[in-house]
Amino acid sequence: MAIDRAAPIGVFDSGVGGLTVVRALMERLPLESIIYFGDTARVPYGIKSVPTIEHYTAQIADHLMGAGVKMLIVACNTMAAVAADVVKARAGDVPVLDVIEAGAQAAVAGTSGGAIGVIGTPTTINSNAYARRMHELDPSLRVYSQACPLFVPLVEEGWLDHPVTRLTAEEYLRPVLAEGVDSLVLGCTHYPLLKALLQSVAGPQVRLVDSALTTAQAAAEWLAREDMARPSGSVPAYRFQVTDIPLRFQTIGERFLGRSLGAIDKVDW
Amino acid sequence: MAIDRAAPIGVFDSGVGGLTVVRALMERLPLESIIYFGDTARVPYGIKSVPTIEHYTAQIADHLMGAGVKMLIVACNTMAAVAADVVKARAGDVPVLDVIEAGAQAAVAGTSGGAIGVIGTPTTINSNAYARRMHELDPSLRVYSQACPLFVPLVEEGWLDHPVTRLTAEEYLRPVLAEGVDSLVLGCTHYPLLKALLQSVAGPQVRLVDSALTTAQAAAEWLAREDMARPSGSVPAYRFQVTDIPLRFQTIGERFLGRSLGAIDKVDW
Repeated sequence: MAIDRAAPIGVFDSGVGGLTVVRALMERLPLESIIYFGDTARVPYGIKSVPTIEHYTAQIADHLMGAGVKMLIVACNTMAAVAADVVKARAGDVPVLDVIEAGAQAAVAGTSGGAIGVIGTPTTINSNAYARRMHELDPSLRVYSQACPLFVPLVEEGWLDHPVTRLTAEEYLRPVLAEGVDSLVLGCTHYPLLKALLQSVAGPQVRLVDSALTTAQAAAEWLAREDMARPSGSVPAYRFQVTDIPLRFQTIGERFLGRSLGAIDKVDW
Repeated sequence: MAIDRAAPIGVFDSGVGGLTVVRALMERLPLESIIYFGDTARVPYGIKSVPTIEHYTAQIADHLMGAGVKMLIVACNTMAAVAADVVKARAGDVPVLDVIEAGAQAAVAGTSGGAIGVIGTPTTINSNAYARRMHELDPSLRVYSQACPLFVPLVEEGWLDHPVTRLTAEEYLRPVLAEGVDSLVLGCTHYPLLKALLQSVAGPQVRLVDSALTTAQAAAEWLAREDMARPSGSVPAYRFQVTDIPLRFQTIGERFLGRSLGAIDKVDW
């Protein structure tokens, strides 16, 4: 079955973090429609076992395929790290992009000295997915990884420029910076909100790789290459679906998206 | 149907935090058998909606009633705050204790000046359950509440005595301490692990109320009053059931329990 160029792009995450990818897509591809799916009833995925993450990811991919999307974007590092193949197996001819692939490509393309740092949640870092992918692209790279479990709660607390966050960042980044990295991959969709603070802690000589921006760029390139972008004059439609509407979802979501969320649909499974 | 005094006590939480209550029970009631149920596949409850929390709580209560427990202990402040009645409705003649009731009773009994602080997760604090219960017990009390969303991730990171945790505690406790409270209720089962640091930040004039200890005390009082304790010479059996076995569960669990967890059963629903 041919893919419909007017169809929306499906973006999904375990919670609210993938809205940073939606924000980057809205800016880079303002004519495209987007369906965002956040599995807020079961967030966070990062502390769950691999079989559980695979099972949940398959459910979400099937749900978005049922909505007739023209592209699937895995905007969750945990799902991308452990279940990207599960999504591809269910997507058929629909292309699947993910934040790890996009971030790894951009980091490798942009490194000046061949030393790259990666920060993320414990599950993403323990999966070694960024380092593995970057080494496939260039085996000579040196990759230094660091789990930063407190960054997500600090972002959700809104302490984006707070002494506690700075002290935490200094502690987490110390070993990576000691290796003289020239690039630092923000391997979690929450981290773009800490970009200013992280740049200040890392110093101006370190290039931050924002995987929300690099994913939006990869999506734009695919649409152009396959002639699948919506024509000029198209009016985009945005839909936000979640499995639960928790306390503060609206507030936190709008901070991530950088604009009003509008109507949010609760999906009952 | 008569309750069997040899039956285990059922203790449940959304995750690992309730193990601080199990630890206190093991120390206070060393002859009693315990079944612990942690809903690790769906943790944390604190960011979910009330209907979702009620639904999950009912499932767990039914599961433990099916295991033939002689007492149910809600060792999760979120479930105690929003779904204690759900548990009681399903427990029949089996007594239901919870950390909020036990903590509120102990705080009111021990206050010297009538000014009590309560700290907890955002859901527990927003529920106002501690303040409401304490005001029922003594309408003249002044209760000052503060949500501390970063304490759980800091405990799980193991930063129990770390400058970041101290700075965070100073910021969270400042408004409560400014009110001159004489007691501070630790309204989250993770917080007993921060007791030394919190005592140091609050100062020696503030009495910390550890709801794990007060719950174990309430359980002991009920068993004595109803003549339902196991006889001397009984050998306790401990069972730990979880809905998922995530990364680091064993490590974090044993830190909470203060001893080896032994075998952990994964329950598939």
